[in-house]
Amino acid sequence: MPNGPETCVIEGMREVWECYRGELNAVEDQIRQNLDSKVALVNTVSAHILNSGGKRIRPLLLILSARLAGYNGSHDILLASMVEYIHTATLLHDDVVDHADLRRGKTTARGLWGNQASILVGDYLYSKAICHIVGFHNQDVNECLSMACRKMAEGELMQLSYKDQANHSEREYLKIAEHKTGALIAAACRMGAVLADADPLQRDAMFRFGQALGVAFQVADDTLDYAAQREVLGKLLGKDLGEGNVTLPLLHVKQYCTESERQRLAEIMETDEGGDGNFVWITALMERYGSIDYALATARRYIEDAKGCLDAFEDSSHKRALHVIADYMVARDH
Amino acid sequence: MPNGPETCVIEGMREVWECYRGELNAVEDQIRQNLDSKVALVNTVSAHILNSGGKRIRPLLLILSARLAGYNGSHDILLASMVEYIHTATLLHDDVVDHADLRRGKTTARGLWGNQASILVGDYLYSKAICHIVGFHNQDVNECLSMACRKMAEGELMQLSYKDQANHSEREYLKIAEHKTGALIAAACRMGAVLADADPLQRDAMFRFGQALGVAFQVADDTLDYAAQREVLGKLLGKDLGEGNVTLPLLHVKQYCTESERQRLAEIMETDEGGDGNFVWITALMERYGSIDYALATARRYIEDAKGCLDAFEDSSHKRALHVIADYMVARDH
Repeated sequence: MPNGPETCVIEGMREVWECYRGELNAVEDQIRQNLDSKVALVNTVSAHILNSGGKRIRPLLLILSARLAGYNGSHDILLASMVEYIHTATLLHDDVVDHADLRRGKTTARGLWGNQASILVGDYLYSKAICHIVGFHNQDVNECLSMACRKMAEGELMQLSYKDQANHSEREYLKIAEHKTGALIAAACRMGAVLADADPLQRDAMFRFGQALGVAFQVADDTLDYAAQREVLGKLLGKDLGEGNVTLPLLHVKQYCTESERQRLAEIMETDEGGDGNFVWITALMERYGSIDYALATARRYIEDAKGCLDAFEDSSHKRALHVIADYMVARDH
Repeated sequence: MPNGPETCVIEGMREVWECYRGELNAVEDQIRQNLDSKVALVNTVSAHILNSGGKRIRPLLLILSARLAGYNGSHDILLASMVEYIHTATLLHDDVVDHADLRRGKTTARGLWGNQASILVGDYLYSKAICHIVGFHNQDVNECLSMACRKMAEGELMQLSYKDQANHSEREYLKIAEHKTGALIAAACRMGAVLADADPLQRDAMFRFGQALGVAFQVADDTLDYAAQREVLGKLLGKDLGEGNVTLPLLHVKQYCTESERQRLAEIMETDEGGDGNFVWITALMERYGSIDYALATARRYIEDAKGCLDAFEDSSHKRALHVIADYMVARDH
């Protein structure tokens, strides 16, 4: 492996993708190989969503966590692929829940094959992943993964409970992010350490690393929904507002704006009018009260916490790569 | 336990419910106790569907299978409850997939709280069950259950693939029933034997028992959709026809009717007109060609096969109870 991580000097994400290309290609092969259902519809729908441009961040984090903790085997590839299956299953269900027609600029599976196929292929990918995961005969892996799945479902349900309301706290908002996004990334990082047979403190450190990374990613993603260029993010701006999801910038602005502004905000939320005019007014309000900056600073704070968790490990190119990925999670250009 | 199975003379289902009432009550307690999410919506939706009049046949079969194989512990109660959680999760997703507004005469969860809550609470119950199941630290249980979940999803997807077509074979139809209904019942029965530490042959016998029972139940249920009294079954007749699901009586009649009858059948399927007139015509056609009788005889054949699997065990009141349940699975009055 002339380009293997041992010989790499990692400056930014370009080098990370480059250095771990071999591992990531192995993950792609594994993802493809396991689409072996005898039911053609399963493979077609699964392949569509699995090839829809995901960055494989969770597999990469699992592999890097394993290597950081000294793992030299090859089981990380299968485990990483199954984490991606689970992530993909949640995307299929999310698209149905959100009535989404586009994901990363492409027509969603539900747009092409309907809600029924999306729900059922989600169930299939999830249970297929569990089948492979129990094949590891590792209690820690089983518990880690099943808890993550439970937390993800709970996180989505918390979000649904708060829909169209802006009366939950920042703390509750962060709890949702920790559940719906942090849980699986935390599990991926922890399972890497488990594969390496790392000690309990290191396993916990990797769990906290992944969890903080996940929260940071979610906060940044929610914030960019109000701030990014349409072209850059490849998704419609104001999506959360239209869906009644109240995220950090909105919670912040609501806390600091005047009473009359608060009233207009409430009216917009109630009447479900996330139209262009209202959206522009809200983003201007956020600009005035520094809500975007506040939310992005919150995301960056989680990233710094995450990096601190890696102090439990000696310096290495893998650690350097994890630092780079941490910064990348809150960058505007992915 | 004055009414415990050891002192019971089991004549029919009345005595089965009576004799295992203690165990079934323990299952109810366990089902309730585990609805302990901090998210109120989770508990509300879960409680609605879990209390919607299900007979707890799967928990009962698991417990009886364990007792048949000599198990005297109490872990069967938790495991049985988790099988019911998984079954309930599939019902929540099925209702969304089928656009169902009623289940057992009551408004469905999706009717009350929408598709979003139904999908996500399904995901929650499923992952919650997996969390508890991996807590058994039993590889056989893990594999048995995860395989059943994969097969159920595949079975639903097979059915979706064949929708609105009547060009699949009886063999393929039975494969769907084996997957979508047989798999979880087979797993429940096998896991009972696993808890009892039964030998591999007995574990397999219980798997085959449950699988045959599941297929028989599905065939009977599909057939009663064309034959039962509306009051008796508590569901709308002709539901499958309306949804484009081609089941055994329809496959049979299509095989034996005249060319012009076959053409009218195809037109009804194509134009999606499962209206009353067409439905009456189809049931009369099935009557004429003995399709209902054929399908019910097929179900009974599976029941006899299932009973044969129990020869691997000595006679006992538990075995007698399992025979009674087997007959009950294809009876018209549940």
